Amino acid sequence: MRALSPAENGAEPGTRFLAEIREQPAALRRLLEQDAEIGRIAEMVRASDARLVRIVGHGSSDNAASFGVYAFGLLPRWTAMRDSITLTVHYGTPLDMSGSTVIGLSQSGQTPDVVDYIRGARKTGAFTIAVTNDVASELALAADVTIPLAAEPELAVAATKTYTNTLATLALLAGHVAGRGAEIGEGLREVADLAEAALPGLELATVPLALPFAYTGRMFVIGRGVEFATAREIALKLLETCRVAAEPLTATDLAHGPVAALDPLFPVWAIASDDGTLAPVQEAAARTREMGATLVASGTAAESIEGAAYRVPVPTPSISLLSPLLSVIPGQLFAWSLARTRGLDADAPHGLAKVTLVR
Amino acid sequence: MRALSPAENGAEPGTRFLAEIREQPAALRRLLEQDAEIGRIAEMVRASDARLVRIVGHGSSDNAASFGVYAFGLLPRWTAMRDSITLTVHYGTPLDMSGSTVIGLSQSGQTPDVVDYIRGARKTGAFTIAVTNDVASELALAADVTIPLAAEPELAVAATKTYTNTLATLALLAGHVAGRGAEIGEGLREVADLAEAALPGLELATVPLALPFAYTGRMFVIGRGVEFATAREIALKLLETCRVAAEPLTATDLAHGPVAALDPLFPVWAIASDDGTLAPVQEAAARTREMGATLVASGTAAESIEGAAYRVPVPTPSISLLSPLLSVIPGQLFAWSLARTRGLDADAPHGLAKVTLVR
Repeated sequence: MRALSPAENGAEPGTRFLAEIREQPAALRRLLEQDAEIGRIAEMVRASDARLVRIVGHGSSDNAASFGVYAFGLLPRWTAMRDSITLTVHYGTPLDMSGSTVIGLSQSGQTPDVVDYIRGARKTGAFTIAVTNDVASELALAADVTIPLAAEPELAVAATKTYTNTLATLALLAGHVAGRGAEIGEGLREVADLAEAALPGLELATVPLALPFAYTGRMFVIGRGVEFATAREIALKLLETCRVAAEPLTATDLAHGPVAALDPLFPVWAIASDDGTLAPVQEAAARTREMGATLVASGTAAESIEGAAYRVPVPTPSISLLSPLLSVIPGQLFAWSLARTRGLDADAPHGLAKVTLVR
Repeated sequence: MRALSPAENGAEPGTRFLAEIREQPAALRRLLEQDAEIGRIAEMVRASDARLVRIVGHGSSDNAASFGVYAFGLLPRWTAMRDSITLTVHYGTPLDMSGSTVIGLSQSGQTPDVVDYIRGARKTGAFTIAVTNDVASELALAADVTIPLAAEPELAVAATKTYTNTLATLALLAGHVAGRGAEIGEGLREVADLAEAALPGLELATVPLALPFAYTGRMFVIGRGVEFATAREIALKLLETCRVAAEPLTATDLAHGPVAALDPLFPVWAIASDDGTLAPVQEAAARTREMGATLVASGTAAESIEGAAYRVPVPTPSISLLSPLLSVIPGQLFAWSLARTRGLDADAPHGLAKVTLVR
């Protein structure tokens, strides 16, 4: 018999989702206890000299893979990609993967085609790493080595702490590969402290945002570079918990067509970081305002976005690559709050199960 | 002084867009006249042995890049990726690109960060190829070699014939790299004939579709493998010409969260091909129906999708990799027809220019 959800037991809907958002700093600190083990795996990656990094996953895991491209690009300066699962698993194309490090991301470790992809990659010469919250899962068994997400059970259907711990795992692994593991570890410890200190204020700041967007049916979420992962993840939270048709776009792609769809009932959430992507995000925000759309600005550089109707800044970490661990939090809290306003249970959205076994 | 659009001259709105949809078979045949030149460039790629293919572009060009991943994966069995522009251009990360073939896609050849990316890639050792409709453009000047799209001027803001010619260029280049150029050329000639024969029937089939969706504000467009490019491109047409919040998803990602947003007013357009991805697309279609959403099935295997309220099948080409050149057409025609029903001018959507100079 399955366990009852908090709402079925009379608790307020969304209780688990909110609790798990709040648990993120503690989950991150648990992950950091595995620093030495992640360093050991990075040594194996360096020894294999497998410098093309292929990352696969679905849903929040695939969003985290967007971050992994930058973690490996910015730290060891290796090329990382979100690889096609279809090419090898569904089309059966025999690719030679020697020289590749392959990272399979799955909270449950059960995503069928991710498991199949990892098996195939390992057979054709890749060094394979499973990143999962279940070290006894099929994915863990299929890979050469496993990095446990150490997030403890995640019970809300929409991922939160496993997402941020996946980002942290990719940053720490890339950091160790670059010989900068200690620095990234220290940076993540700082992020845990910043997140813990900021969470109460972010809850207060995002809860009132739900009311003006109570009837919003469509939304774009824009970000670029490291924050494109955040844009994807916030859009996914809104889709799955609030039934908003939220689409993630890079700041630049907004101008290549989608901007034409905007109007005052089609708001845009912009994530701005104080890095080389700030100018394109500011330009996209200006285009948004020209179309009459309401603009929400978040991220470390939220204050640099002119004309935003609402701003939810997050603290700036010492290592800007790690901003996405903080900038996703306002989006998670907004999704929780908006779901509650709409009478939806963010813990158990209609039509979804925690473990997705679809290929 | 700029030229007046057909609507400004009293012609029916969307005239250019429809004309350019209809021109696609002729544009494809013009591209095929360059077969020998594309074969020569493929020889240069083989000689450089630069086996990691990095493809960049924005908007429709980026959608075509999704197809390029499969063209190079399935034909020469090389790894191709949609590379990050931000990493090198906005973050200034020095990546060693020797061993990479780099393909920059831009109809106008003016997209600023694509030009910058190509310049940087060439400096760091990549073999660089520009694919553009303007052989005198900055992009063409920046790259080692240029493949002209040969689509003749495209005047509607929303791309059609330059998109399908970009797909064809990528298929033909990958085919020549694999030593199968003649076979792919023959396949593309067949596609031009099939498209020409099918167009009048597809127009008749899609025009009546506009009425039931006249007030649709949100839509998912799903496809997988080679047809994910089609899903992305159809969604973009609907965003830019019809102001529908249309989001492309792989069939599998639909189940990883977004499915929860569906309801009877949130329809799904599914592109089904008769290849290894049919089962996941069928499964996604079944999930869609469970949520009560209206389903439109298109693609070569549209008849294999149970429970579709509407079906727009396209002919099956001999080479299934080339299906996306046909399966995008019903989506283009639907966008044209829906824009007309809504009183929008598909030739010149509000807020867009033909050449996007945003970074």
